[in-house]
Amino acid sequence: MTTLSDHTLSGDRPQPSDLAYVPFVSVENMMRMVNAIGAEAFISGLAAYIEADFRRWEEFDKTPRVASHSRDGVIELMPAADAENYGFKYVNGHPKNMREGYQTVTAFGVLSSVANGYPVLLTEMTVLTALRTAATSAVAARLLAPQGSEVMAMIGNGAQCEFQALAFRALLGISRLRLYDIDPAATAKALRNLEAQGFEVTACKSGQEAVEGAQIITTCTADKQYATILTDNMVGEGVHINAIGGDCPGKTELHRDILLRSEIFVEYPPQTRIEGEIQQLDPDHAVTELWQVMTGAVPGRRDAKQITLFDSVGFAIEDFSALRFVLDRVKETGHFDKLDLLADPDDPRDLFGMLTRAA
Amino acid sequence: MTTLSDHTLSGDRPQPSDLAYVPFVSVENMMRMVNAIGAEAFISGLAAYIEADFRRWEEFDKTPRVASHSRDGVIELMPAADAENYGFKYVNGHPKNMREGYQTVTAFGVLSSVANGYPVLLTEMTVLTALRTAATSAVAARLLAPQGSEVMAMIGNGAQCEFQALAFRALLGISRLRLYDIDPAATAKALRNLEAQGFEVTACKSGQEAVEGAQIITTCTADKQYATILTDNMVGEGVHINAIGGDCPGKTELHRDILLRSEIFVEYPPQTRIEGEIQQLDPDHAVTELWQVMTGAVPGRRDAKQITLFDSVGFAIEDFSALRFVLDRVKETGHFDKLDLLADPDDPRDLFGMLTRAA
Repeated sequence: MTTLSDHTLSGDRPQPSDLAYVPFVSVENMMRMVNAIGAEAFISGLAAYIEADFRRWEEFDKTPRVASHSRDGVIELMPAADAENYGFKYVNGHPKNMREGYQTVTAFGVLSSVANGYPVLLTEMTVLTALRTAATSAVAARLLAPQGSEVMAMIGNGAQCEFQALAFRALLGISRLRLYDIDPAATAKALRNLEAQGFEVTACKSGQEAVEGAQIITTCTADKQYATILTDNMVGEGVHINAIGGDCPGKTELHRDILLRSEIFVEYPPQTRIEGEIQQLDPDHAVTELWQVMTGAVPGRRDAKQITLFDSVGFAIEDFSALRFVLDRVKETGHFDKLDLLADPDDPRDLFGMLTRAA
Repeated sequence: MTTLSDHTLSGDRPQPSDLAYVPFVSVENMMRMVNAIGAEAFISGLAAYIEADFRRWEEFDKTPRVASHSRDGVIELMPAADAENYGFKYVNGHPKNMREGYQTVTAFGVLSSVANGYPVLLTEMTVLTALRTAATSAVAARLLAPQGSEVMAMIGNGAQCEFQALAFRALLGISRLRLYDIDPAATAKALRNLEAQGFEVTACKSGQEAVEGAQIITTCTADKQYATILTDNMVGEGVHINAIGGDCPGKTELHRDILLRSEIFVEYPPQTRIEGEIQQLDPDHAVTELWQVMTGAVPGRRDAKQITLFDSVGFAIEDFSALRFVLDRVKETGHFDKLDLLADPDDPRDLFGMLTRAA
């Protein structure tokens, strides 16, 4: 790897002060940190931060993410702030990337001090987003899935699949999985990875087969279009649906009739109305905000026959929680580099002098 | 400095592919690049990119910046995109920072490929913002200042002051400056730096004294409040006012009566109405968009007696131009480091496998 982690300095010119440096977590250091802690324990830790932040929902400065759509995908900025910290994530979503050897989703993020605006952390968030998305799904499912759930169907076996499985085992004890993907190679990849993690995995030949006997159905597909991964007849009473893939305008996974039979839980309605499964419904269709279930203000699952649906699109506060979590772990583990990102002249008004003296 | 620039790799683990790396321009490398090119030449180059992008204004996906305000300052995200590239800048503004040894404004930015969403450049933008702000002011002034302008008054002699002076010399040939700041130490700093750059500089004891004989008045102060840096009687006919400091809600520099006597030019009205001097005016008060002057669709200065006002707040397209300019210079100079910012598994769907194999 690059030797930024050596913090090596050349000796022959004035060195920036500590104010100039921002801790940076590279992909390599993120993987080191996750592997040192263990992916499942990392997700559990993340989940606790997400829950803590959702419980104080009203303290946050919130906004729907700022999206720039193009023919092949979307690039988004997702900011959120409380009184102490400001965080944002840059994330893209390009379904065609996979076919060209690129990630569908890549991301990085920054946490800053609200008091002076200086970044305190820059980190990769491709791996971290996969972890936080899974943690959020499991946090929601713990409140919404039927008691004694044992089997989860997973439709869409791409990059997010294994992280979801780990999160559901960590938070709900799910260890039996039924996989389906339109591409058998994706299912084979997930099967291999998940069996190695000790899951009992069944590869299925259709979505219909995958949902048989499952109390929880996770849909996580990537196509940027209106798709019908689940039809109405596939969803029996009492099931919890964890719908991850419908996350931008024009991209949904569930047949509308399923939505009409479900109690729908969302992260942040102003964003989910635009991006989630509920873009198929009237703009005033009743939904429940997940944070209110967490605080106990409104109930989660009410009975065994109810169909619950977590219409997940991913909200900035989850990334804020993830950034907080990583910063705390960075302080413990030292798995970071120092990045010369901020100009730090001796006299803050003398930026020009700093420039000319460097010549 | 850190040795990221050595691109040194350890030998004992799988190395990320080139897809994983994003070129990064540190503060040190930005200063190297500016000093190698020369600050004035750098600003001239930047100005050409800004003009080129303003002339194709209608091709851009534009949005007012996304601001998170707090008691002591603001943190903003400024995105803009054309069909090929997406750019954004993170920038803070905290007037009290200076008193505590921090920069009032720090910034960094990213340029990405619209086609796949991958970042192609991460760069410091504290120094770069100072340069692009100055370049934009001078681009506007070349269209708006009276013919044969020779003297510029500069009220507010902080971090932006010297960059403005260089830009006005580069683009308009201005070499005589009259400085004033409420803090004489700031004026002394600017005087020292600017005399070393060959300017003829007069330090003044008041704003009134500074504007005497000046054809161009640049105001660039930092307080986050309604201030009156220029009163109506200070502004004679024929003057061009380059108002930089009024750039967020509740922060203005000019007396309202000056605005009523001026032809007002702005970057992006939806943002300037919120942040600029014109927040003091009716929301439908006529303003001219600078890009239309650049294309020749509308005239700039019409006669010698007119007062022209560039109500500058800083718009995302200027940063987009600056990012493009830096990326092109980076390719020429090699003044960058490679940052391990993006996860790049062999199989894009196998993010989890990448993680476990790294263990």
